[in-house]
Amino acid sequence: MLIVMQAHATEEQVRDVCERVEAMGLKAHPIPGSTRTAIGITGNTGAIDLGILESLPGVIECIPVSKPYKLVSRDVKEDDTVIRIPLPGPEGSGQEVLIGGTHVAVIGGPCAIESREQAFAIAERVAAAGVRLFRGGAYKPRTSPYSFQGLGEPGLEILAEVRERFGLGIVTEAVDHESLDLVEQYADVIQIGARNMQNFSLLRRAGRARKPILLKRGMSATLDEFLMAAEYILAEGNYNVILCERGVRTFSDFTRNTLDLSVVPAVKRRSHLPIIVDPSHGTGRRHKVLPLARAGVAVGADGLLVEVHHQPDRALSDGMQSILPDEFEQLMREVQQIAAVLGRNVN
Amino acid sequence: MLIVMQAHATEEQVRDVCERVEAMGLKAHPIPGSTRTAIGITGNTGAIDLGILESLPGVIECIPVSKPYKLVSRDVKEDDTVIRIPLPGPEGSGQEVLIGGTHVAVIGGPCAIESREQAFAIAERVAAAGVRLFRGGAYKPRTSPYSFQGLGEPGLEILAEVRERFGLGIVTEAVDHESLDLVEQYADVIQIGARNMQNFSLLRRAGRARKPILLKRGMSATLDEFLMAAEYILAEGNYNVILCERGVRTFSDFTRNTLDLSVVPAVKRRSHLPIIVDPSHGTGRRHKVLPLARAGVAVGADGLLVEVHHQPDRALSDGMQSILPDEFEQLMREVQQIAAVLGRNVN
Amino acid sequence: MLIVMQAHATEEQVRDVCERVEAMGLKAHPIPGSTRTAIGITGNTGAIDLGILESLPGVIECIPVSKPYKLVSRDVKEDDTVIRIPLPGPEGSGQEVLIGGTHVAVIGGPCAIESREQAFAIAERVAAAGVRLFRGGAYKPRTSPYSFQGLGEPGLEILAEVRERFGLGIVTEAVDHESLDLVEQYADVIQIGARNMQNFSLLRRAGRARKPILLKRGMSATLDEFLMAAEYILAEGNYNVILCERGVRTFSDFTRNTLDLSVVPAVKRRSHLPIIVDPSHGTGRRHKVLPLARAGVAVGADGLLVEVHHQPDRALSDGMQSILPDEFEQLMREVQQIAAVLGRNVN
Amino acid sequence: MLIVMQAHATEEQVRDVCERVEAMGLKAHPIPGSTRTAIGITGNTGAIDLGILESLPGVIECIPVSKPYKLVSRDVKEDDTVIRIPLPGPEGSGQEVLIGGTHVAVIGGPCAIESREQAFAIAERVAAAGVRLFRGGAYKPRTSPYSFQGLGEPGLEILAEVRERFGLGIVTEAVDHESLDLVEQYADVIQIGARNMQNFSLLRRAGRARKPILLKRGMSATLDEFLMAAEYILAEGNYNVILCERGVRTFSDFTRNTLDLSVVPAVKRRSHLPIIVDPSHGTGRRHKVLPLARAGVAVGADGLLVEVHHQPDRALSDGMQSILPDEFEQLMREVQQIAAVLGRNVN
Repeated sequence: MLIVMQAHATEEQVRDVCERVEAMGLKAHPIPGSTRTAIGITGNTGAIDLGILESLPGVIECIPVSKPYKLVSRDVKEDDTVIRIPLPGPEGSGQEVLIGGTHVAVIGGPCAIESREQAFAIAERVAAAGVRLFRGGAYKPRTSPYSFQGLGEPGLEILAEVRERFGLGIVTEAVDHESLDLVEQYADVIQIGARNMQNFSLLRRAGRARKPILLKRGMSATLDEFLMAAEYILAEGNYNVILCERGVRTFSDFTRNTLDLSVVPAVKRRSHLPIIVDPSHGTGRRHKVLPLARAGVAVGADGLLVEVHHQPDRALSDGMQSILPDEFEQLMREVQQIAAVLGRNVN
Repeated sequence: MLIVMQAHATEEQVRDVCERVEAMGLKAHPIPGSTRTAIGITGNTGAIDLGILESLPGVIECIPVSKPYKLVSRDVKEDDTVIRIPLPGPEGSGQEVLIGGTHVAVIGGPCAIESREQAFAIAERVAAAGVRLFRGGAYKPRTSPYSFQGLGEPGLEILAEVRERFGLGIVTEAVDHESLDLVEQYADVIQIGARNMQNFSLLRRAGRARKPILLKRGMSATLDEFLMAAEYILAEGNYNVILCERGVRTFSDFTRNTLDLSVVPAVKRRSHLPIIVDPSHGTGRRHKVLPLARAGVAVGADGLLVEVHHQPDRALSDGMQSILPDEFEQLMREVQQIAAVLGRNVN
Repeated sequence: MLIVMQAHATEEQVRDVCERVEAMGLKAHPIPGSTRTAIGITGNTGAIDLGILESLPGVIECIPVSKPYKLVSRDVKEDDTVIRIPLPGPEGSGQEVLIGGTHVAVIGGPCAIESREQAFAIAERVAAAGVRLFRGGAYKPRTSPYSFQGLGEPGLEILAEVRERFGLGIVTEAVDHESLDLVEQYADVIQIGARNMQNFSLLRRAGRARKPILLKRGMSATLDEFLMAAEYILAEGNYNVILCERGVRTFSDFTRNTLDLSVVPAVKRRSHLPIIVDPSHGTGRRHKVLPLARAGVAVGADGLLVEVHHQPDRALSDGMQSILPDEFEQLMREVQQIAAVLGRNVN
Repeated sequence: MLIVMQAHATEEQVRDVCERVEAMGLKAHPIPGSTRTAIGITGNTGAIDLGILESLPGVIECIPVSKPYKLVSRDVKEDDTVIRIPLPGPEGSGQEVLIGGTHVAVIGGPCAIESREQAFAIAERVAAAGVRLFRGGAYKPRTSPYSFQGLGEPGLEILAEVRERFGLGIVTEAVDHESLDLVEQYADVIQIGARNMQNFSLLRRAGRARKPILLKRGMSATLDEFLMAAEYILAEGNYNVILCERGVRTFSDFTRNTLDLSVVPAVKRRSHLPIIVDPSHGTGRRHKVLPLARAGVAVGADGLLVEVHHQPDRALSDGMQSILPDEFEQLMREVQQIAAVLGRNVN
């Protein structure tokens, strides 16, 4: 923490601030400048909220210096975390998908599971395109209470069949404690959606789950908030967290969200966790998915989460941003070539 | 819904779109313009996602026209809803606080309940200032898992004592199903925080509660999303919802959040529900609370939610934005005078 | 400037950074912490861009501490600046409008001057409502090259007639050097619009003008940028600058801009310059002008800039946000009463 | 334009709106819906501001439908515009750089021209990396009046020497009429910066220049505003406009700006003009430039604008975001490979 004093702060005011800091059991380091004094504070373990010092006479501003996250930080673990997702198959086959390090993974499938036929038709196409992780929602958080909310557990049962039949790992969302209990039984990766990024009660439960967590960035989450949400999960003991950028909310009016690709190198600088990109929600329009998917891999993301639908004009949700299986095959070809430019492989 | 065709769209493309619309059981109304054709669509009850039409050949854009909310809308109920909060007291005393219509209510108290002593000291001062609703969190959603998370049920028990002793109605936050079950027993108004504004599972539970709900706007919620979150609660049968503006997230760097006071007249135009303003979270700085509290009442809000602490430099959370009891008394005096200018009374 | 080192930065890296800082002629103050070291830097007069230090090995972040503005700062001048605008009248009448300190001024008039008849009709009404400053654009910056761009010098001549006839001071916008030369001759206050807030060439010219400048905040200007824009004007010798908040751009979709009223107490804390509020552009909708005008005075602004039109449905620009003369009279009555609550007078 | 009526609007109110529309010389098309009526309006050529209709009794909202731009639109010209920039060389050598269509161009060089030595050192390296367009500012718009503002005409003379010596085309910024007159003489491409994107007086002057214009997107410009700014230039007769995305302002705090790559496919859908990406200003941090440059080409941009400095820690401006010549060579190699994946060539 750094405290900046007003230019006309008196020596006594500076002394008062220092005494107050020392009374909190911390250490104050005054740094006299040409126009004003700043006071560095050390020894704070994070338990004390120093913001209050901003109200003391003569103080202009308190600037936090230490980052609040610990377990997610590269300070704690320098090497990239690689998440391993075992695939269904005969006991001991040892098939797995890797996310992180030099490994890029693509997850494809519909927004929502609508029926067995729909799920199978799409799973067949994404598997044929070389993908080994299948997405599809059984629980859908919807802005309107009157919109389709997902099939619930019957949707999870369809996903279990897809898993069995096509050998695909399953990624699906949990929206509360109850659904998480079920999703944990059926899925290979548990997704926490953007609207729940700061549902701390749900994050703690995810931290006690025995499956990797795919954590989506909230619509207006800062980088620190995003990493702190992951910290909640790690703090409970689950170290297998995959971050996901899915677009943030800005003034921009020609797109559903603004995909913030610069968060990828920013996360990589601060954290060892892998981060993937969702160009479907990130743009909200079918014609932007392929360009932004390419950009996501080019910027260095560890994977993609892509909505695919064989009949998008009949989709019960998000048809507008789902691409067709043929477009998805093109996407796979192009991102494989771009990953190779970066010395990475798509698996 | 309005569909806008490209300037060089062919007649056949226009016809195709119309046929697709009619096949969905809706009615298409082509409006030929000088440079392009638009197609109005009627008959949609909200169940069909028309966005997909944007992908058809020749279409530029789909513009939604109908508002998705129903029960919260002034279309359904023209008069202002007035929420009545019965106060503790001898059976049949009939004391109550009103929020909405010409009635403005101020809710004061600490960010978090820290101890019986702290709660009583502050309650005494806010009651003396003329306030009849007391706020204080027993469950605190915190960005960091390592920060103080609230006292939990013992905090609720302290609030019950405050209620008994000072005759104040209690407003306190629930963060998940479990805490909502408890809060419902102890509080007079159940608060749902900004981070949970789209925790739809929690909203549905709040819709089944027998107490009024104070619903805070999410950090980047549009007006439609805010009203739709309230719609979730009303749709479950609880019509007693108080909206609360608490600042939104923007590029602005000199304030914790940007208090969006223009949402007040905007809500009043669309909905019958009351809306109050939280100048404490809305600014995050003590010296801005009084000015923005005045502005909140001046813009026409139905109340204020204000953080007060007798020792803000020792507060376990949000000390930086809590005002002192003396400042709170000044606030009460000034907002009473401003309310009078608008022909309203503070109760 | 404060430099934050990585937790695992070596002692050598810390020493390197210090040496580099000293080589720049500045002084480095290392502050060892429990998990990481920070380095305070003093002696920088603003000429050196220290951001580059962020690229040195072991450095995480550079945090600027000193504020870059000087002449606009309260550090330089503690008392509020009061701008005096002499009104037309017989030589020596000494009539003037004051903005700042305890003085609140309302400026009313149409968005654009459209004709002599229109200007006179509106001027008569705003004068009758007690206003002594008249606004009206002769040069209009418009998003589209095909929209009405203002009457130019003939518009200024109409303003001169209004000035003469009704004894009103004139506030009107200059959009480039050429128009500023003319506006300076005709107007009492020269307005620089939001889109030109960082047109530094125009700001310098305004700094050499002999009339007060009304400087509008840019659509996404931070507080520092806003004050630095004013600094450009003061640095050329013109100390008569009135700041104006007119709404910023956010994700919000129900309003043309988001009026950021918290900037008013923020400016007052940092600068001695007066700041007024424009609720017309700040909201873009007629039904929000009156509520936000009240809020602007309640928050402590030194004045209002309000668009008034006697026939808004025939206005050539911004009819949607102009209020009628009757509404304007109500506005004047209400803001006078609210100003009185704050111990201020509207002049 | 579409007018949406309130659910409880009377038939008379609908009729009144229609009559008002017809009185303006336009045609009204009422579309009765199940809960409310909408009214389509045709025949407007853009001269009439229909927003005012929103104030009529019974009207909820006016939704603009027609796009306001004309010359920049794909409606007017379906094929991609390819800008041709002739390079210096012996008369008739016919060397040129192409931007648009299948052609991707990289522009490299320092933020500001600081000296002949600096310019030559960097020019030599970027030319060696295969680049044929050199950037470097002689006029620098700076937030602070006390920062380095560029060398002015002596800077242009240095650029002319670079042009001559290395055969590089020159891209440099004009900040007002005066500097544009000079830049037009020296440069091959005239840059208009983000802060001047709505300096309409300067845009008109650029529209009369005989050189191509590189127009940067404003910090909070919507897509329509960006294209309308280009429209100002085309409307004066200069059809050679290159758009440039350079990051927008959002709440995001870990980056100088948020690079909005989704604007690239959005522009391509609406306009025939080429668009390039500036990853240097778009991120503000050296370690993000290479990843975002790759992403820019992957998303389909027609070029890159990259700041390169041989001694970034001694740069007089923007050292923090300039990359080293070695990094620039790596950038060129990688973007060439990515362009090839899209079937495009870097020239």
